[in-house]
Amino acid sequence: MKIRINEDEKLDSLNYKGLQIIQKKDSFCFGMDAVILANFVEVSKKNALICDLGSGTGILSILITAKNQNVEKVYGIEIQKEMAEMSERSVLFNDLQNKIQILNEDLVGLSEKGWKKKFDIVVTNPPYKKYNTGLTNENVQKLISRHEVKCNLENVIMESSKMLKDEGIFYMVHRPERLVDICELMRKFKIEPKEIRFVYPKLNENSNLILIKGTKCGKPFLKIQKPLIVYEEKNKYSDEILKMYEGDISK
Amino acid sequence: MKIRINEDEKLDSLNYKGLQIIQKKDSFCFGMDAVILANFVEVSKKNALICDLGSGTGILSILITAKNQNVEKVYGIEIQKEMAEMSERSVLFNDLQNKIQILNEDLVGLSEKGWKKKFDIVVTNPPYKKYNTGLTNENVQKLISRHEVKCNLENVIMESSKMLKDEGIFYMVHRPERLVDICELMRKFKIEPKEIRFVYPKLNENSNLILIKGTKCGKPFLKIQKPLIVYEEKNKYSDEILKMYEGDISK
Repeated sequence: MKIRINEDEKLDSLNYKGLQIIQKKDSFCFGMDAVILANFVEVSKKNALICDLGSGTGILSILITAKNQNVEKVYGIEIQKEMAEMSERSVLFNDLQNKIQILNEDLVGLSEKGWKKKFDIVVTNPPYKKYNTGLTNENVQKLISRHEVKCNLENVIMESSKMLKDEGIFYMVHRPERLVDICELMRKFKIEPKEIRFVYPKLNENSNLILIKGTKCGKPFLKIQKPLIVYEEKNKYSDEILKMYEGDISK
Repeated sequence: MKIRINEDEKLDSLNYKGLQIIQKKDSFCFGMDAVILANFVEVSKKNALICDLGSGTGILSILITAKNQNVEKVYGIEIQKEMAEMSERSVLFNDLQNKIQILNEDLVGLSEKGWKKKFDIVVTNPPYKKYNTGLTNENVQKLISRHEVKCNLENVIMESSKMLKDEGIFYMVHRPERLVDICELMRKFKIEPKEIRFVYPKLNENSNLILIKGTKCGKPFLKIQKPLIVYEEKNKYSDEILKMYEGDISK
């Protein structure tokens, strides 16, 4: 089957098991945060049902499925119609259509709209920036992917909680400056933060990303995992980062 | 003036500017956490009034005073009479009696007992462990220093908040597993977490200490500082740790 690639799109390598992804040339492209989050996720339960909230290009759904044998099915929820359609083609391109289903839906209020599925794992790489902060003249797709235009942190965590089975696991990547809000909202919606890993661009720089794992109805006890350092000396990627890309980060 | 050292006590070097401290031979001795916290504290305001809640051996009060020219006065609050008296002798020993005053008081409810002082900075190295968790047959002094027997996290943060001026700064060292509780309680008592630094024993190990800085009535925006690594390869202390001890950690 020949998969369509539109003129304003390009096909990029995920540098992992030959996976590829379709992306817009001039719009939001996946970043290292999605790759790091995919590697942070552990799918230990067999036949796991997973939901990817705000699935965008499909990068997370695709990587998690490719990296974990225990995945039964991943549902990607994406509000942007064009993005959802494009990610469906990426799923087909990687022959993962039996494992991944993309739904073009607004995650806000999804559980109230009659969608009653409960998940073992919810993963999300939501927009990081508050609406009205640092807005630039980005195109609409970039804006929706990066800023809390269509959903905010509270929506994402509340919906995640409603979708999770008891003891189901929540994974998110976000910015350190929101950590206190994240912890507060997770507790509010009964997802207890259990593990956090801070990502530091370099050993002597402040963290710019956090990876967080929580358990629905879990008991309080937080583990701060070893630091994830992106660059070693002389701007060389660290071994751990290189391993996520099978040693080749060039695209 | 000759300062008394009791038979069950010893005089230890702080490995900093010739400072020394009196400690019980068989009881709670200060650890690296106090030294790390003292180095995390910045006293940028001139003539700063500082409160050290649960001052114990006096280590924090002494180091902060010695390291910062802007200190006007440090009040150390210590509930254990014998500990308070011993720390007063350490203050005298280092000739810091004009800068440090130890009060043998329970920090719980202190502001309600007519003590109306307001501080620019509150520092605290409180007991880390919840009462009834991991209790061993430690002696009473160790127990009170390490476990939440006489005060708990909520008491400490509430009293700190009451003692701080608006925009006053709160510094605490604690365990990572309590981070979510800490953030929740700080917000509850209007101390906004502003900076956190995670301490990792080694680069490939989970964090075992956190340093947290908050501002009374501050706006939400958290910075996660670069990691503090204690040991480098071959169990050698990192340069940053060595610097805190002027290159010599042996006692």
